Amino acid sequence: MSMTPRRATASEEALLRIFTVPEAPDSTLSVIEKNISQNLMGFLQESVVAVEKPLSEIELDFQQHQIPSAPQFVSDYADEMMKTLVAHSVHTSSPSFIGHMTSALPYFVLPLSKMMVGLNQNLVKIETSKAFTPLERQVLGMMHHLIYSEDDKFYKNWMHSANYSLGAFCSGGTIANITALWTARNQLLKADGDFKGVSAQGLMKGLRHYGYDDLAILVSERGHYSLAKTADLLGIGRDNIIQVPTSSDNKVDVDKMRAMAKQLDLDNIKVMAIVGVAGTTETGNIDPLDELATLAVELNCHFHVDAAWGGASLLSNKYRHLLKGIERADSVTIDAHKQMYVPMGAGMVIFKDPAFANAIKHHAEYILRKGSKDLGSQTLEGSRPGMAMLVHACLQIIGRDGYEILINNSLEKARYFAELIHGQDDFQLVSEPELCLLTYRYVPKSVQEAMQETRESGNTEKLIEFNSLLDGLTKFVQKRQREQGTSFVSRTRINPESRASLNIQSVVFRVVLANPLTTREILQQVLAEQIEIAQQDNEFLPQLLALASN
Amino acid sequence: MSMTPRRATASEEALLRIFTVPEAPDSTLSVIEKNISQNLMGFLQESVVAVEKPLSEIELDFQQHQIPSAPQFVSDYADEMMKTLVAHSVHTSSPSFIGHMTSALPYFVLPLSKMMVGLNQNLVKIETSKAFTPLERQVLGMMHHLIYSEDDKFYKNWMHSANYSLGAFCSGGTIANITALWTARNQLLKADGDFKGVSAQGLMKGLRHYGYDDLAILVSERGHYSLAKTADLLGIGRDNIIQVPTSSDNKVDVDKMRAMAKQLDLDNIKVMAIVGVAGTTETGNIDPLDELATLAVELNCHFHVDAAWGGASLLSNKYRHLLKGIERADSVTIDAHKQMYVPMGAGMVIFKDPAFANAIKHHAEYILRKGSKDLGSQTLEGSRPGMAMLVHACLQIIGRDGYEILINNSLEKARYFAELIHGQDDFQLVSEPELCLLTYRYVPKSVQEAMQETRESGNTEKLIEFNSLLDGLTKFVQKRQREQGTSFVSRTRINPESRASLNIQSVVFRVVLANPLTTREILQQVLAEQIEIAQQDNEFLPQLLALASN
Repeated sequence: MSMTPRRATASEEALLRIFTVPEAPDSTLSVIEKNISQNLMGFLQESVVAVEKPLSEIELDFQQHQIPSAPQFVSDYADEMMKTLVAHSVHTSSPSFIGHMTSALPYFVLPLSKMMVGLNQNLVKIETSKAFTPLERQVLGMMHHLIYSEDDKFYKNWMHSANYSLGAFCSGGTIANITALWTARNQLLKADGDFKGVSAQGLMKGLRHYGYDDLAILVSERGHYSLAKTADLLGIGRDNIIQVPTSSDNKVDVDKMRAMAKQLDLDNIKVMAIVGVAGTTETGNIDPLDELATLAVELNCHFHVDAAWGGASLLSNKYRHLLKGIERADSVTIDAHKQMYVPMGAGMVIFKDPAFANAIKHHAEYILRKGSKDLGSQTLEGSRPGMAMLVHACLQIIGRDGYEILINNSLEKARYFAELIHGQDDFQLVSEPELCLLTYRYVPKSVQEAMQETRESGNTEKLIEFNSLLDGLTKFVQKRQREQGTSFVSRTRINPESRASLNIQSVVFRVVLANPLTTREILQQVLAEQIEIAQQDNEFLPQLLALASN
Repeated sequence: MSMTPRRATASEEALLRIFTVPEAPDSTLSVIEKNISQNLMGFLQESVVAVEKPLSEIELDFQQHQIPSAPQFVSDYADEMMKTLVAHSVHTSSPSFIGHMTSALPYFVLPLSKMMVGLNQNLVKIETSKAFTPLERQVLGMMHHLIYSEDDKFYKNWMHSANYSLGAFCSGGTIANITALWTARNQLLKADGDFKGVSAQGLMKGLRHYGYDDLAILVSERGHYSLAKTADLLGIGRDNIIQVPTSSDNKVDVDKMRAMAKQLDLDNIKVMAIVGVAGTTETGNIDPLDELATLAVELNCHFHVDAAWGGASLLSNKYRHLLKGIERADSVTIDAHKQMYVPMGAGMVIFKDPAFANAIKHHAEYILRKGSKDLGSQTLEGSRPGMAMLVHACLQIIGRDGYEILINNSLEKARYFAELIHGQDDFQLVSEPELCLLTYRYVPKSVQEAMQETRESGNTEKLIEFNSLLDGLTKFVQKRQREQGTSFVSRTRINPESRASLNIQSVVFRVVLANPLTTREILQQVLAEQIEIAQQDNEFLPQLLALASN
């Protein structure tokens, strides 16, 4: 091997150009980018096709399993992706797509995201992120203050402290929930005498040392599925996520939870944590957090609140009282990519006690040096991007005053939509909006009346028949509406007969109203379209009407 | 509440503008963005200050713990962030910053990232990602083929199958390693007779059912710290990550691993998995994967390969033989954000057997519908962004031929740098580059000679003294070089005296040569700068020279 610098070959030089020569301003990709910058909504409306293509057909464009040999021109690739990928993606920010938890994004996050990618920091340690580390700590501090409102001294002491942390940034709410409950498990089964802690010696020895037969986590039956995943991962087992029934308002029944905890105690199963849900995925309801906090004190266990979706409502001074009791939680999950208008990939878990995360602290000698402020020593993830910057930007640019308006508008829009549904003869509101999420279904007036009679007469079998036909109709309308591509509501399955003391799981429309661009006119159109679709040729409506007049 | 659409207030209308009115072309943020698009390297060179500011001073700009009330103008925010954040971030893509695993990025990923953010898909389910789901499955299929080279029929059967998966996309290598070992644990302690599986019933009952006293994972002492984190999380315990010594080439000693496995078996501790490292973080060496595969068969256990960093070398036909045996692994971790030139946040775990991930399959009734192709039913994370698009783009645009050149150049640049070090009197190469990572230190020739004599004379104490002074000198040079801001190498601690059968952990320079823009001239300058710094006023060099002439 020669010691003089060697000359690059022609193909090498061509290749290096992708690293050194910017995209030309008139290149396909630059033009696409310009369209995005100048009119994102217009770009999406034009680029994402409205009428649905079946997945099996979309898949035909993604069959090749070998990495191609020859490089492809960027412009050819961009053209192809516009046709195969972008055209058949989901227009998640459309004001009339009100079935998801995503929303329109503020424009400024686009250039900032690009800056984030260009800077390509790695938040695992200071050496690869520098100022991004204090920025992330500040975001966690601000979110901590939003929940717990500690005094200036508290944040001065802990926000930038090497040995403490006010929370952890995560890719999403699932990792946030896992981080919280992992920490809770490690705190519970901590080092004690000869026992070096569950972290070092594992769950088997931990349970044996503390004399428990098993661990359990109590949560509403409406808790997110990530909690079962967490129990699986942590070695606790999905069966030990004890699902507690809710009352008719979809809030967990705290008395039942207390009773179940007592039974577990008699069986020598330690309740490791109780989880309050602040915004259930299906109905958006908030558990009685204050009562849960009191129960957690009684049980001497960890109290976690999964506010992945609803936590952003704390930014509204007008409505934050709905989450009262959250300030007593030991840990809280909040996703900034849900109602905080940040792009996908920004979850957070916040810890009340700055020393809490020490239970999962880990050091890799010479990677995460002890005593350093490296964030990686107390996160579940290792290498991760500087997403905290986008949350930081939204908090500063939108500000509390801006969020106050955005959140209040969302909640009030949901109340407006509920009124609208109440005012229509042929719709039934199934769950009232507590935050900005509600469920309803299309039920012709004559059917509603017949169902009410059926309920009163106690004819359960007939009531089940009604609900089963309504399931078919709701699914039909929801799918057809999605396929038509003008608007989209999601669907879920809940119990619309809880007031009749029956447990029938039925399909309902589910609507989330966080998009500031969704107007009241759009909501009116969504209902009008659903009425129209329900009248279209389908097997369910005639049967329903027949059953009602029977 | 009135049923007629209400009028927006002035402040509401102002606020909505951030969602509807694009950044003006001459706004601060647009100008910044233009600079990034037109000359990323120039932008970073100008914006990131070269001379280091102490972290404690940087923190002063991130003290506010209250979310500000008043909204801030985007341009003011952008100005501020340029000064406080960007200026003090790390120039990870600088060709002369050769201490990280990050590299310069190809230009096309910038507009594509912006498109990804604008589309804001959520890969957890098809309903929120549509064509992104088959795209991600295709990327996993391509990576599977890169490792396992199955035939066309295999990929036709499994790549887009609802009930199978060829891997999982993750935010990074840590989640990938956790996913692999979580799955392995659940496969090992699967449902059997009355036992419903560790997933449902937890680790305690799983171990009891199968009659094991504990589980263990065997890995080289050079394994990544994420493995200990995994053992903690899974309830296995960090102590049960059994660290196996390496031989003098930093590769795990398979005979010792076999002996340790035998001992564990005698103690009724089941070896759940062995992990091969393909590219250790400290020295870049690759474990003897073929021998490990054979051992895994003997032990009837899972064989995972952590190729987070080194896996990209499979893209080189010339050098992929270095990873021989990886095709026998049950699961493999590869980070696309390391040597595949993708921005931060793109990890993958690939499963040999398409049915493997069924051990962690989970369904949330009506969120991840059974039988659907929703990716979320077999990933650790829930909501996550469409990062797979950037990997897809790099695979197509760079192609195998392009990666062949990039990877080969990196490896050959590392060999060139090793030659360069060998050719210098005052440097000692500590670990030879197997991939594109090497370690070395500055040791004046007279000191090298004196140390050799000391080794031969068996004077261990004096040898330790030499190494301890060299530690100080290496640290001094590394820190000063970083502070000067022209170039950056990292440092780690390994045993430079393994050939002398001593175990001394000493500080060395660590260099990763994946950046295609790093020239041979830069490498020469790095050494020249280090020689210069070593001569600067410090306590270590005089003491070393004195000890050598003693």
